[in-house]
Amino acid sequence: MSGITGELWRRINEKREEYLEILTGLLSFPSVSATGEGMGEAAGRVAEALERVGLRSEVFTDHGGYPVVWGELREERHGTLLIYNHYDVQPPDPLEKWASPPFQPTIRNGRVYARGACDNKGNLAARLCALDLLLDAIGEVPLNIKFLIEGEEEIGSPHLSRFFQNHKELLSSDACLWEMGGASPSGRPLIYLGAKGILYLELHASEKRADLHSSWGAIVRNPAFELVHLLSSIRDRSGRVLIEGFYDDVQTPDSETIALLEETSGFESEVRAIAGEDGLLSNKPAKELLYDLTLMPCINICGIYSGYTGQGSKTVLPSSAFAKLDIRLVPGMRPEKVLELVKNHVERVSGGRVSVVPLDMGYPAARTSPGEPFVELVSKTAESAFNLKPIIYPSAAGSGPMYLVTDILRTPCVAAGIGDHQSNIHAPDESISIENYLRGILHVALIIVNFVPFMRGGVTPYL
Amino acid sequence: MSGITGELWRRINEKREEYLEILTGLLSFPSVSATGEGMGEAAGRVAEALERVGLRSEVFTDHGGYPVVWGELREERHGTLLIYNHYDVQPPDPLEKWASPPFQPTIRNGRVYARGACDNKGNLAARLCALDLLLDAIGEVPLNIKFLIEGEEEIGSPHLSRFFQNHKELLSSDACLWEMGGASPSGRPLIYLGAKGILYLELHASEKRADLHSSWGAIVRNPAFELVHLLSSIRDRSGRVLIEGFYDDVQTPDSETIALLEETSGFESEVRAIAGEDGLLSNKPAKELLYDLTLMPCINICGIYSGYTGQGSKTVLPSSAFAKLDIRLVPGMRPEKVLELVKNHVERVSGGRVSVVPLDMGYPAARTSPGEPFVELVSKTAESAFNLKPIIYPSAAGSGPMYLVTDILRTPCVAAGIGDHQSNIHAPDESISIENYLRGILHVALIIVNFVPFMRGGVTPYL
Repeated sequence: MSGITGELWRRINEKREEYLEILTGLLSFPSVSATGEGMGEAAGRVAEALERVGLRSEVFTDHGGYPVVWGELREERHGTLLIYNHYDVQPPDPLEKWASPPFQPTIRNGRVYARGACDNKGNLAARLCALDLLLDAIGEVPLNIKFLIEGEEEIGSPHLSRFFQNHKELLSSDACLWEMGGASPSGRPLIYLGAKGILYLELHASEKRADLHSSWGAIVRNPAFELVHLLSSIRDRSGRVLIEGFYDDVQTPDSETIALLEETSGFESEVRAIAGEDGLLSNKPAKELLYDLTLMPCINICGIYSGYTGQGSKTVLPSSAFAKLDIRLVPGMRPEKVLELVKNHVERVSGGRVSVVPLDMGYPAARTSPGEPFVELVSKTAESAFNLKPIIYPSAAGSGPMYLVTDILRTPCVAAGIGDHQSNIHAPDESISIENYLRGILHVALIIVNFVPFMRGGVTPYL
Repeated sequence: MSGITGELWRRINEKREEYLEILTGLLSFPSVSATGEGMGEAAGRVAEALERVGLRSEVFTDHGGYPVVWGELREERHGTLLIYNHYDVQPPDPLEKWASPPFQPTIRNGRVYARGACDNKGNLAARLCALDLLLDAIGEVPLNIKFLIEGEEEIGSPHLSRFFQNHKELLSSDACLWEMGGASPSGRPLIYLGAKGILYLELHASEKRADLHSSWGAIVRNPAFELVHLLSSIRDRSGRVLIEGFYDDVQTPDSETIALLEETSGFESEVRAIAGEDGLLSNKPAKELLYDLTLMPCINICGIYSGYTGQGSKTVLPSSAFAKLDIRLVPGMRPEKVLELVKNHVERVSGGRVSVVPLDMGYPAARTSPGEPFVELVSKTAESAFNLKPIIYPSAAGSGPMYLVTDILRTPCVAAGIGDHQSNIHAPDESISIENYLRGILHVALIIVNFVPFMRGGVTPYL
């Protein structure tokens, strides 16, 4: 590292404790949108964190649902960067699988453990610290900054489209830095040019009777079996979805996008580290797996429940059964149409005995072209910050309401962040490495200082 | 009612409060063999209840497992009746579905509500009261009585066969009155000449990795789907078991047994009351349904669980999934062979990814011939006690280790009891009607006083 990059990195390390405190402050309260736990106070605490680093904050509730925390640093600069994050987190259970309580951030082996450490309070903290860093190191932030921090990402962002309708002017910007991303197992930064869409639903099978002694199972219908038969009709053993028409609208990716899939070295080791020996659905080569993961839709069982699941042997014929499914969508697929296809399939196969309950509205996928200048800026600055060449994926495997930026605002949008293959997002012992957190701060600072020169003239004077 | 029957019925009603107190005493403590709740004290409290009505009691533990409570009233009579009951109960959950706490017996609308009210403490109480009644009304019990009250029926009686090996002499008797039975919706007493065998097992699918963000579901194996595919390969939508060889050893019933299936009127109304509108697996006529329920084996899902089952939408790829199954066996089927068939099927279909864990050893089915004199005695006395002609089924749909009596002791065994179609055994709000409880006391008393004359000379002088 040299020049401004080296100077910023030196200052980050000087302020390491303060930046960890900004992080742990955000991790010390629950904000579980799925259950509502802690959501009453969360927006206010996030707004305080914004004010602390010098942003003007505002809490919006006009869209309905949990508040959006808005932050601004606007001084008539020649460019505007929109930064998207969310302050809600996934439910922490199963609690007994956490080594330390999920809302008491704990440092072990150079990592910070807490629910939200990576997804998404850690990413938010790094970006806030980047502003503090620039104000501290160079006395100004040479770019208009807009923070959009929503509280419903983990439940499918059901009200965010209304926020975009209500505040189109406020949201206008030259580019958007999205919430997720991280490093491969070898430490190379991962950059995503899109996100999948999502549809989340429950399937309910229930009978108009009480639970019965299981001996009746010889002639009385069992909703657990009804559900099991239905679920096995939805997806085959290889993971292929069997619902008629499911793949009809999947857009064929262009050659620039396909070309991104050539870089599989980081992906292969990540997959091995994550899925475990023999943990994959198929023996496909890495490039095809990467294609499936980033460019293909899928259906997953997130949970299933019926009857007695405690200790020992209770012989009961349950009166109901349910499953929770998420469906990941790719460009071309519309959630309302996919929901119709699912409903028709469930009706046909179950004979009306299983009902479909969508939990949120769902949203479509988003994609930014690899040729967008902002992609190159995020990539070049990542290489400086992490000292390794980044890996660019056409899309995250995960979802986010990024289509509001790419398709409604028509603004290029790129995701980069601070996670890694050990981050356990949506699972017990979620964590980030402190090293990645600090490098993430540097990365965002470098994006900001180089933004105007690069977007206007293609140069990065501050690397 | 006339003669001795009328006199006994009058005395029962006189002592109604005392007999209800004997019942609620047994219902006031938990004894959940599946979880162990309350099992430390249960045997002692049951032994006290036996002593209260004049039985000599003994608590056996030499067979291993939870104690057997033994009771005797033996005065060198010319006949011996063995009475089988169990003091353990099913787990009470889901607790929130009970209108009153499961171990606080509560009377509402002429019914007693509590876990075990019917299965099986209510039946035990009625039989104890029958002894009290005879001692009170005629000053003696004209029959040797042996009570065998085990504590592991609800978990498959894993140690009872050892008790039978250890105490063959003690158990010798002329006939055995088994634990279950009740009344049809129209009030006709139901008598069972057998019980199914059982095999209870868990299926576990698990991956060597943590729970993951569900976006990985596009390429990483989901144990919930593995389990769902396996379960749907075990049983088709009509309930027919698809495991190779499953039906091979099922014995064809004889014509006397088949003849019992002609009486379907009580059965039809019971099924309608229990299964609800459109709640049956098939549209077969009643006689065929009764055949399936009493004379055919079946496999049932008692419980299934994986991933997130709480409120809202958590997007997780679970690392494990499990199901609990019970398999009901009929004469000819051996539990160890059926377990092998299941294991082979699971291994073949899941490719070794799902494992089979039998929770208990299991036991085979039992059947007593409709031509046995004891069947007629139980039937005639039931008609007197309940004022309605009984319905005799070749077997209960449920299971019990009755084979130890019929196949090891070679003693005829008949089940009759105090339940009804609203009893909700193994389910929330288990209950019995007080009327049926009192008539059940009368029934057992009539069996006892008529036993020697009928078994020796075919007469029932005390009806």
